[in-house]
Amino acid sequence: MKSDPCNLLIIYTTTNGRTGDMVQPIQKGVIDSGLKATVKTISEVCWEDMVSANGIIVGTPVRFGDVDWEIKRLFDVTALQGYPGPLSGKVGGAFTGGGKPGSGAELALLSMLHILLNHGMVIQGNAHSAHYGPVALAESSKDSIYSTCYDWGRHWSDLVYRLYQSNSPKS
Amino acid sequence: MKSDPCNLLIIYTTTNGRTGDMVQPIQKGVIDSGLKATVKTISEVCWEDMVSANGIIVGTPVRFGDVDWEIKRLFDVTALQGYPGPLSGKVGGAFTGGGKPGSGAELALLSMLHILLNHGMVIQGNAHSAHYGPVALAESSKDSIYSTCYDWGRHWSDLVYRLYQSNSPKS
Amino acid sequence: MKSDPCNLLIIYTTTNGRTGDMVQPIQKGVIDSGLKATVKTISEVCWEDMVSANGIIVGTPVRFGDVDWEIKRLFDVTALQGYPGPLSGKVGGAFTGGGKPGSGAELALLSMLHILLNHGMVIQGNAHSAHYGPVALAESSKDSIYSTCYDWGRHWSDLVYRLYQSNSPKS
Amino acid sequence: MKSDPCNLLIIYTTTNGRTGDMVQPIQKGVIDSGLKATVKTISEVCWEDMVSANGIIVGTPVRFGDVDWEIKRLFDVTALQGYPGPLSGKVGGAFTGGGKPGSGAELALLSMLHILLNHGMVIQGNAHSAHYGPVALAESSKDSIYSTCYDWGRHWSDLVYRLYQSNSPKS
Repeated sequence: MKSDPCNLLIIYTTTNGRTGDMVQPIQKGVIDSGLKATVKTISEVCWEDMVSANGIIVGTPVRFGDVDWEIKRLFDVTALQGYPGPLSGKVGGAFTGGGKPGSGAELALLSMLHILLNHGMVIQGNAHSAHYGPVALAESSKDSIYSTCYDWGRHWSDLVYRLYQSNSPKS
Repeated sequence: MKSDPCNLLIIYTTTNGRTGDMVQPIQKGVIDSGLKATVKTISEVCWEDMVSANGIIVGTPVRFGDVDWEIKRLFDVTALQGYPGPLSGKVGGAFTGGGKPGSGAELALLSMLHILLNHGMVIQGNAHSAHYGPVALAESSKDSIYSTCYDWGRHWSDLVYRLYQSNSPKS
Repeated sequence: MKSDPCNLLIIYTTTNGRTGDMVQPIQKGVIDSGLKATVKTISEVCWEDMVSANGIIVGTPVRFGDVDWEIKRLFDVTALQGYPGPLSGKVGGAFTGGGKPGSGAELALLSMLHILLNHGMVIQGNAHSAHYGPVALAESSKDSIYSTCYDWGRHWSDLVYRLYQSNSPKS
Repeated sequence: MKSDPCNLLIIYTTTNGRTGDMVQPIQKGVIDSGLKATVKTISEVCWEDMVSANGIIVGTPVRFGDVDWEIKRLFDVTALQGYPGPLSGKVGGAFTGGGKPGSGAELALLSMLHILLNHGMVIQGNAHSAHYGPVALAESSKDSIYSTCYDWGRHWSDLVYRLYQSNSPKS
């Protein structure tokens, strides 16, 4: 018997609101896949939330081509407890809101994924869209951001099902 | 019924032999986990090998902080067939042999993982050792390289079991 | 007496034309700064062009989140001659044409810069725009691509002047 | 008349002492090149130190394959003042102390360089050794760490001379 896949967590912080706007469509993609995801801001989340989750998605604004310092502190300080081990094997994912093309959004996104890999988490890319996770730029239309985030939420949920449940509600 | 997890593939090329020396211990780690992995050099591998595999591990020497150009050509040209899609959901992994600390081995390794993520593959980090995949440097001892590669081969196989088989031979 | 700063080189290859369209505005930015830059495609450029240049800008399309394999071969094979040393201290730069936001353009751009750094070249970021070099996405307007590339060409030329000439024609 | 190249700054923080041990040989390399560099820890450094410096070298321990969160906060919060602009054109550099090969040292180092590039700073790679900046691993010998750091300090100073002074004391 596999464990309950419903204990999923979205952690985020936002500077100007762009990263924050990505949370709802991602969460809706997860919900429409038949799962549930709790949303916590960087100031609300605690270690127990992270340890007990089967999957964690982290949203960070682009800050000089890297993750936000408060997100980094969460992993450097909070998630250092019991390292290595507590987050191993969980499903990871990341999303980011940035500025212009080439202004560091992918670098921030990949730095976030590297942190999750370092903790032993499982990441899936996406060949069709948002290869490494959703990115919203200043010039992106609201519609394209919404659909990219929603589709990625569903894509991410597929991996949760593969790893935690033999039979998905969809089948 | 899940598919046969035994169709696994290790692709590699080597410049001075360091990357080539990593193949055998990685393959042994996979075999000792109860799986089988076919080994092909960059000049032997064909697209059918890649498409039919459930998991692909790619070994590249460090070439100026990035993957070898023949490895890159394999993904730019050969794996472009039917893209996006054919490699989605397969288990991916990478290893690399480099020179001194800081001479580009991690950059090459991560560039390889980014390519696999771009194709939609599933990657797991390792919290305990070889976070992103095994790296052998010139100053590394043969013993440490062997054990790092072997342990990673077993770690990687665990993900193959999680994704492709409910009951592993170990349980 | 400092050397002639006019021997500058732009090397590029293009898949669907997007990277190729960036060449002209970058070259115009360099010319309007009082310098000259020769443009060569990946199939035209030879090692002598590279060794004799004081500065080299490389344009690559995004290929699975990394540089094009022919660009990689140029550095793995051609530029291996006499390595390390021949390209040390020259001014480097890179640009790339990609698809959607987050589809790998920054990763390709930075992989290119890492290759140039590995060869000992000098890179300057840009705090105001195109931090790591110009990126053109599918959804970017022609005007924004043109101005980003042109401005970056002028920015890049400033570093050429700083490194190669006490008095620029502008002063 | 070019400005005084002597106002150079080394900022660092250290976890277990490995990154801290790299400061002295780097500083000695700078001094033996005829320059001076002030050393400040992350808790001592202030924005005025950074703005008034002609060159800044940042040392960070490897923290989950990225820069330390306090280093990140320095750039996210302190260096945000007056951004973009205040650090543009200064000479940048980075070094890092990490654990095993492949445990994230290069990723941390390159993330640091990307932050400096984002601020418009000038970075030079090194074709001969420590391509992107010095890296010390747990298994590296004290002698190899010392010579790598010292040589890099001299290499870095060469760029300071090229950018800030026509005639170096060495010539």
